[in-house]
Amino acid sequence: MKIHDFAIGPNPARVRIALAEKGLASDVTFVPVDLPGAEHKQPAFLEKNPTGTVPVLELDDGLFISECTAITEYLDNLDGNPVLTGRTPREKAVIHMMQKRAESELIDAVGIYFHHATPGLGDKMLAYKSPDWDGRQAWGERSRDRAVAGMRYFDKVLRDQPYVAGQAFSMADITVWGGLAFADFARIAIPEDCAALAAWRARVAERPSVRSPAG
Amino acid sequence: MKIHDFAIGPNPARVRIALAEKGLASDVTFVPVDLPGAEHKQPAFLEKNPTGTVPVLELDDGLFISECTAITEYLDNLDGNPVLTGRTPREKAVIHMMQKRAESELIDAVGIYFHHATPGLGDKMLAYKSPDWDGRQAWGERSRDRAVAGMRYFDKVLRDQPYVAGQAFSMADITVWGGLAFADFARIAIPEDCAALAAWRARVAERPSVRSPAG
Repeated sequence: MKIHDFAIGPNPARVRIALAEKGLASDVTFVPVDLPGAEHKQPAFLEKNPTGTVPVLELDDGLFISECTAITEYLDNLDGNPVLTGRTPREKAVIHMMQKRAESELIDAVGIYFHHATPGLGDKMLAYKSPDWDGRQAWGERSRDRAVAGMRYFDKVLRDQPYVAGQAFSMADITVWGGLAFADFARIAIPEDCAALAAWRARVAERPSVRSPAG
Repeated sequence: MKIHDFAIGPNPARVRIALAEKGLASDVTFVPVDLPGAEHKQPAFLEKNPTGTVPVLELDDGLFISECTAITEYLDNLDGNPVLTGRTPREKAVIHMMQKRAESELIDAVGIYFHHATPGLGDKMLAYKSPDWDGRQAWGERSRDRAVAGMRYFDKVLRDQPYVAGQAFSMADITVWGGLAFADFARIAIPEDCAALAAWRARVAERPSVRSPAG
């Protein structure tokens, strides 16, 4: 298998951690994509992933799989023991629900702030930015507030259970982890009173897959 | 089981079709949520789903599951035969990839246009709208163009295969179906040259689950 990605991105990190969790790190080779140079928006890359995002998993038979959830479903089910995406209908439901919340309320919110309200990765990467307007709070700034609200939501969840989707580490934890790393990069701080989130983060940081992700 | 939703919305339609596909229509009761009255943004509903969206599945033990992908994973796996979300790692990967593309490139794009560039469901539902600015194309208008580009993408996919994720009807078809229904409602037309997409839509319209969804 090959992974086409950009080593420092939050979404590549999600798949690199999943690979390490599943013991698959030695089964992949990494192909770097020049994100600041907008390589992922050029025709050659869009043939692999029309949505123009990284990471992309390339299977040995030439099939390209994009989107972290899809790649994680693939990797997690290869050995018939899907610990990251859930084994029972109930586990699958809760993990996919929390996974989607981690995307919409945290990682996507940070992304909109980063790309629209800061210089982001530069003009080649995203020439269009949502406009500021007449003193009202702009889209990017609102998204920063939404990301902080997302942090407060996950803090509340983690007061009652050790992991984002319940008693076990899952794909949803990986996405929240990626979201907080992206928030660091975009300089959005975790509120100081989010003690449960901070404790969870310190615990997750000690996992072998997070200390030594694939790649 | 109960489903909390709003009968005419595109996301409720996705779950109602999935229920019918799985033969589970008679196992659920529907609880209407007053979307134009912003009931889904009030504290009582936010206890059920902090993200403030419909539909929400309520299990008999009181667990609330939101997000269409999560609800569909639950319903589809109950009988041990996940035909909508995939049985093999490869099927799961392709379905989740196309599902995510159907959301980001179609249903979410229509939603941003509908809520930001039209009166949408009214001010109670969404008081903030992304501003128009100085003659440049605004966020909502760009999203309409993105939705049309999404239609063209799915048309291209459907020239080579009968269903969105390959040879079989899946969750990804349901999401594209919901996206096109939402586009009708928002008055975004399918480009006339998207013949494969139109043929697929006519075929899907004849499915029993689509002719008679749950509810």
